[in-house]
Amino acid sequence: MTQTVAAYAATSATAPLTKTTIERRDVGPHDVAFDIKFAGICHSDIHTVRGEWGRANYPVVPGHEIAGVVTAVGAEVTRYQVGDRVGVGCFVDSCRDCENCQAGLQQYCTGAGGMRGTYNSTERDGSPTQGGYSQAIVVNENYVLRIPDSIPLDKAAPLLCAGVTLYSPLRHWKAGPGRKVAVVGLGGLGHMGVKLAAAMGAEVTVLSQSLKKMEDGLRLGASHYYATSDPDTFTKLAGSFDLILNTVSANLNLGAYLNLLKVDGTLVELGMPEHAMEVPPFPLAGMRRSLSGSMIGGIPETQEMLDFCAEHDVTPEIEVIDASYVNEAYERVLASDVRYRFVIDTATI
Amino acid sequence: MTQTVAAYAATSATAPLTKTTIERRDVGPHDVAFDIKFAGICHSDIHTVRGEWGRANYPVVPGHEIAGVVTAVGAEVTRYQVGDRVGVGCFVDSCRDCENCQAGLQQYCTGAGGMRGTYNSTERDGSPTQGGYSQAIVVNENYVLRIPDSIPLDKAAPLLCAGVTLYSPLRHWKAGPGRKVAVVGLGGLGHMGVKLAAAMGAEVTVLSQSLKKMEDGLRLGASHYYATSDPDTFTKLAGSFDLILNTVSANLNLGAYLNLLKVDGTLVELGMPEHAMEVPPFPLAGMRRSLSGSMIGGIPETQEMLDFCAEHDVTPEIEVIDASYVNEAYERVLASDVRYRFVIDTATI
Repeated sequence: MTQTVAAYAATSATAPLTKTTIERRDVGPHDVAFDIKFAGICHSDIHTVRGEWGRANYPVVPGHEIAGVVTAVGAEVTRYQVGDRVGVGCFVDSCRDCENCQAGLQQYCTGAGGMRGTYNSTERDGSPTQGGYSQAIVVNENYVLRIPDSIPLDKAAPLLCAGVTLYSPLRHWKAGPGRKVAVVGLGGLGHMGVKLAAAMGAEVTVLSQSLKKMEDGLRLGASHYYATSDPDTFTKLAGSFDLILNTVSANLNLGAYLNLLKVDGTLVELGMPEHAMEVPPFPLAGMRRSLSGSMIGGIPETQEMLDFCAEHDVTPEIEVIDASYVNEAYERVLASDVRYRFVIDTATI
Repeated sequence: MTQTVAAYAATSATAPLTKTTIERRDVGPHDVAFDIKFAGICHSDIHTVRGEWGRANYPVVPGHEIAGVVTAVGAEVTRYQVGDRVGVGCFVDSCRDCENCQAGLQQYCTGAGGMRGTYNSTERDGSPTQGGYSQAIVVNENYVLRIPDSIPLDKAAPLLCAGVTLYSPLRHWKAGPGRKVAVVGLGGLGHMGVKLAAAMGAEVTVLSQSLKKMEDGLRLGASHYYATSDPDTFTKLAGSFDLILNTVSANLNLGAYLNLLKVDGTLVELGMPEHAMEVPPFPLAGMRRSLSGSMIGGIPETQEMLDFCAEHDVTPEIEVIDASYVNEAYERVLASDVRYRFVIDTATI
């Protein structure tokens, strides 16, 4: 028996999001149904609904930072029960069979259908997926995360995308004691990078356009804060870092940033610049440096991240909003006027 | 007492190399003096003497693939004696003190003076360094390599640059059994990559413009050989490799090559393209891939490479030439008309 739920959707690339209803599927034997309590607003939501990453399949209900409470489970579900606090991130399914899925790297699924996005993608039966700006969702239990009791649901939501997007590369490239990590950009992604890297024991530097948010950066866990608009920054910090996480989607002068890395250092692009990046060869070869990319995290690592956040009391800085504010919130995200993540209270839909 | 030795030098960016003489310094307490028997011709020699990497300090005696026999050692030298078979690669000194020098990564020296190139650079006293297209050289013992008895000196010479340039990234990115390695370009560098990767136990694929050298590639140790002029190659091999070593200095369509890597795969640029590389962000992020650079190898790793080559009977394919042929050889290198490395018999200078 499908369920009709209230949602906010975009009906075209140029229309504002408006209230509507969508159908959620019947709870299958391996499904978990849950009431969505909060949904974070990610810059990707905006790119997608505005067709900036290719034409979307309208109507689109965005939202892939989803936290809520289980209302029903299928007959075969063993890991969750009614009342559990759960979340869903950027994908709701994958082939489950390829080498990467088997390794828990579902975000890099190479099988049929690939990683199935939480919205603007399709389920196995071909029906469109619809995201978290809605009051309920039904997801296969293997793609559902458990939210630790100590993390409030509103603060848990942004961890499902922003959190794991930073956690995964920090783990993969071994942030920790004795390692110097720079985070470029102090926004929704960047502020999580600072908190997580500091919690892992790394020495954290923020590289931001200006010093405007310096006080915040230091409070969140950074030891140093530099303005990238000051050319001295690039002289002073040359050869300093083991790892740089770039959360800015604008195209940077990559040669300058690569030169900030030590030998064997890595610059990880998380911001998905619009254009191809221009990479001068010498800063790579001259110190065996790497330019790398990383995309969210797999299911096991997302759960590990949530547990880590609970253990280390790491949560995002959020501003909870009513659903009716979503279009204004989008404008503020584009103007970097949010500290640091909008979260929709879905009770207001 | 300085020594006057015959050499071939470039006197300007446009002049052919001509015979001349240079002075070699007196043998200091930590120096090794040796008669050069053979010197390989590296593409870098041509770039340098023609001013393509910035104006050179003429006259320049090129050559940084040098093999010979010790004729004198300083009073404090303990590791070498007269008659030893030795070599020198791309550098003859470094600060000896920075973190990288201490770690045996002298090629990435960050101290005063940095890595001191074998030619077109300066010694600590400010005098110009002059390379291997000459009959003798004097080098601090810490920058001299021992050539194993089983490797003929003419074949040893190219190992000092071409050999270690491939050996180092193959080791660093863990080529070995169960790993799939592609080598882009089958020239002086590429043919060493094929031999070394195969000797390490990796499954080797050559990606070459055409199938012209296919027979050679398979004979040298490759299991597969594909033409990059055939677009099907990029479809067929998508997601195949753990490591790609690019030895071609032309600017490739990097997105296409990055897509040939598995999750966590690395494309290493060894060819030093003339222009900045254009890197599309999705092929990196979509599979956590890396674009990296690597530059020759440090002294301990160069010795390790020589010993590995002796143990596994890996030597370059060479064409030994008289010194008077050097200018013609340069043209043939530029036309990729050499299989696979020219080596000057310095007795003919």
